[in-house]
Order: sequence, then C-alpha cells, then structure tokens
Amino acid sequence: MVQVLNHSSNEAPLSERMQRKNEARRLDILRAAARVFRRLGLSATGMREIAEEADLSPGNLYYYFSGKDEILLFCQERTLVRLLASVEEARTASGSCSGRLRAVMSAHVRCMLDELEGATAHLEVEVLPEAMRKGVIQKRDAYERAVRGLVAEGIERGEFARTDPALVTRAMLGAVNWTARWYRPEGPRSVAEIADSLSDYLVRGLVPTK
Amino acid sequence: MVQVLNHSSNEAPLSERMQRKNEARRLDILRAAARVFRRLGLSATGMREIAEEADLSPGNLYYYFSGKDEILLFCQERTLVRLLASVEEARTASGSCSGRLRAVMSAHVRCMLDELEGATAHLEVEVLPEAMRKGVIQKRDAYERAVRGLVAEGIERGEFARTDPALVTRAMLGAVNWTARWYRPEGPRSVAEIADSLSDYLVRGLVPTK
Repeated sequence: MVQVLNHSSNEAPLSERMQRKNEARRLDILRAAARVFRRLGLSATGMREIAEEADLSPGNLYYYFSGKDEILLFCQERTLVRLLASVEEARTASGSCSGRLRAVMSAHVRCMLDELEGATAHLEVEVLPEAMRKGVIQKRDAYERAVRGLVAEGIERGEFARTDPALVTRAMLGAVNWTARWYRPEGPRSVAEIADSLSDYLVRGLVPTK
Repeated sequence: MVQVLNHSSNEAPLSERMQRKNEARRLDILRAAARVFRRLGLSATGMREIAEEADLSPGNLYYYFSGKDEILLFCQERTLVRLLASVEEARTASGSCSGRLRAVMSAHVRCMLDELEGATAHLEVEVLPEAMRKGVIQKRDAYERAVRGLVAEGIERGEFARTDPALVTRAMLGAVNWTARWYRPEGPRSVAEIADSLSDYLVRGLVPTK
C-alpha cells in the first residue's frame, strides 16, 4: 500500500473519518501541484507556488506535506500502485496474452494522461532524494517484471513471435510513458482513443507476421 | 546547418583550419559535459565541473561556450541534424517503406546511445531558455513530420495497416527516445543489436496481421 508520509504519522492514529479527510486534502494538493509543475516546470516550482495554487497558507500546506519531494513521492507512489494493480489483474485473468497485455498498456496510458497524475508521474525518479527513491524503484521494477512476464508467457505459448522480452517491454513502456510529453487535452483525440490505438499498435508488433 | 554560437561569431571569420580545430575542441567539451551530466545530473552540473572534466580552465571553457545552455543547445542541434539527415536519406531512397522506416529508427537508436550525445540528447528542450528553443523545436518538428510522412506513405501503398500516422509516429519516437533512459553500456546487448531488434519490433506493429 501507499505509505502515508505526513506529519501525523508520528502522532496518535487519526480517526478513520479524519484519515479520509486528510487523504482527500492531499489529493487536492497533488492536483494543484500538478497544475503548477505543468505551468512553471518542476525546478521553478516551490512550496509557496503550490500553496497559492491550492489556496492554502504555506503553514497549512506543510501540515500535509513536508516538502516538494514528498508531494512528488506521493504522486509516484500512487501511480505505481495503480499500475501494479492493473498488471496483477491481467496476470491472473484468463484469455489471450494479447488481450491481457493490451489491457495493461491501455490502463497505463490512461494513468499517464490522467489530469491528476499526468504532469508529474513521468518525471525521473532521480529528482527524489536518495532515501525516498528505494520504494519507488522497487515498485517500478516489479511492474516492469510483471509486464515482461506477460510478454514471455505469450512467446512461450506461441502467441507472440520470438523476441527479447526485456527489450520489447522497455519499448512498450517507453512509448506509453512518452505520451505524457506530447499529449495535450485540447488535441483532436480523447484519452480513451489514444489508449486503444496505442495498445493495439504495441501488441501488434509482438504477433508473428506472415 | 548547425549554427555555431560561440564568442568568435561576433569577431572576424576564423581561418578554415582554426574553425576545424575550434569545432573539434567543442566536441571534446561536449563529451566531457555528457559524462558530468550523466554522473551528477543536469541541474547539479555547473560550468566549473564541466571545465574540470574537460581539463580546461573556466576562462578557457567560456571561450568555447558562453554557458551550460549553449552546450546543451550545441548537443541538441547536432543530434537533430544527424536525425534529419537519416530521415532525408530514407525519404529519397527506393525500396519498401518497412525497410526505409526500419533504417530511420535504427539510426535514431544509435544516435541516442552514442557515447557522445546519448546522455544529453534526450533532455527536454524545455530546459533551454526561450530564445534558444525555437530552432531546436523547428528541427524536431521537421523530423517528426518526415517520419510521419514515411508511415503515411506505407499506409497509402497498402504496405502498412490503416492507423493514425501521427499517433504511431509518436509511439515509435517514444520507444526509441526512451532507450537513453535505460541503456547501460555494460549491459548484455550491443547498441547495434538493440537498434536492430527495436526497429524490427516497431515496424512490425505497422504491418497488417493475418
């Protein structure tokens, strides 16, 4: 699960209702931060700009997040938990490897282009301080491993052509992660259309031609 | 052509021999800068670190480049000129669209993983100051347009399946650009192998299945 890393974690446990309220507030802040990151760029954004966008006093913002890094961590963790859930669902589902892999890639695109996480989720984990990276990298590696497992399963079953699963997995992930760089909400195609077409194309490249 | 933007551009033209020497020195500096960027990250790298790595005094470095931004610009320009040359060659070549597109993607991978340009070429153009971006963005757009043109030609000829050329072009470019993020020279596969397998996979996704 996502580790909640705010100040209250050192204090007495909050009531469930308070925790839910707390979490909702953190999500509001994340949305505000994503908007500022998109507008000003990551390095030019400070806690002051985020507080302003979230309509909070700086002191109030610091109650929810100890700094910009913690906001980024929260964002990356949320994204990865969502991606891991989708690949786990595909792993245990029945049906063709093509169909299951298409579902994972399509969910990944939707996750990247989601208003909430899109702007920051694709940022390099390298911007996080050393101590915060470990959990993110572990989850990211677990996700990549699971996708690669689906590709390998398809090859073993003869459903996919014989290729290097590690390489095509990285190609697929590169293509879907890259969407966050070029997607514009005002563009001609919806997120759902992009997710469908892109996952079709990426899985088609695995199928033997003839 | 690459615009040479160093101090000497305001002065009397250099002799041809001096210009060649100057260019070679700038390439040495670019290589040194790429090594430091890779080691320290872009934002933590200053002109002082680059001078040290290039074995130059800071004053001497400033003779060749007015700042970090100019080094980045030089790197991006060089990469784009190389990419544009390869797509232009493919555009005017004879042969199948598959083969020509495979050649472009393969050249793109080699360009990304090249020791010289790899570390910095994939950096967001957004790190450059406004005034420097224009030329880079124009070249980047021209390259993307030319790749899209090859895809569209393949669809028209019935060699590729009917898809959205803009979307699959971005998927392909995302996959090849992403290699700079995960490639490690000490990894199990050579740049040539990666370039071949990846371009095979990416073009296979365009071919109608059945």
